[in-house]
Amino acid sequence: MVEMGNDTAADARTVIERYWAAAEHRDWNTFGALLAPDVVYEIPQTRERVRGREAYVRFNAEYPGDWRVTVERVVAEERRGVSWTSFTVDGRTETGLCFFTLDGSGLIDTVTDFWPEPYEPPAGREHLVERY
Amino acid sequence: MVEMGNDTAADARTVIERYWAAAEHRDWNTFGALLAPDVVYEIPQTRERVRGREAYVRFNAEYPGDWRVTVERVVAEERRGVSWTSFTVDGRTETGLCFFTLDGSGLIDTVTDFWPEPYEPPAGREHLVERY
Repeated sequence: MVEMGNDTAADARTVIERYWAAAEHRDWNTFGALLAPDVVYEIPQTRERVRGREAYVRFNAEYPGDWRVTVERVVAEERRGVSWTSFTVDGRTETGLCFFTLDGSGLIDTVTDFWPEPYEPPAGREHLVERY
Repeated sequence: MVEMGNDTAADARTVIERYWAAAEHRDWNTFGALLAPDVVYEIPQTRERVRGREAYVRFNAEYPGDWRVTVERVVAEERRGVSWTSFTVDGRTETGLCFFTLDGSGLIDTVTDFWPEPYEPPAGREHLVERY
């Protein structure tokens, strides 16, 4: 069952869509206003962690390159959601997958970020797969 | 707004939980019964695609190694969902992220599978991050 939310708090889909729109527009005031003061951001692949709204806004604002982000899919419950995005920078496009949780006020309190990279398929399953 | 589903169809959370339980138990009859006949499975990182229930069950049943899967998180709407799982095989643990869609009967019709691998963090953000 979906937990009943605070009537005044935006749901996770709305918050995630605002988050990516603010990032795309480098609107760091709006971006920061979506975050809990004690937000925790983690990249499990590098085992990096950023703590707190100020550091996390700066982490994004300082991210190098003239990147553009396109939202491919958002799957969301009331207080949790996932985004699948495409990042394009320097002519390359990368996939970003973010898991979000929101606190009771509808502010983002955790972001867990994954960047899956291309790799060569293992041998032995060519009889079942096609390449695209 | 969440779309109203068919009353007789299981929601995405239930289906995804059954999917992983069946995989963990190598119960390929139950696993196959969760899939639409024309299910399409894709791995964007390798650009591999498997079409159809029979081939996709076989792809999983033939997957090498004595792997175990633990579900870390499921985020789901009525007809779409995402799973974050940990796969352990040969003493190594990998992260799997799957995006699912269900058809109107509650059968899985697409699975998009990502395997993010560890990588070294880029230089220049040490002032904002900690390692864990």
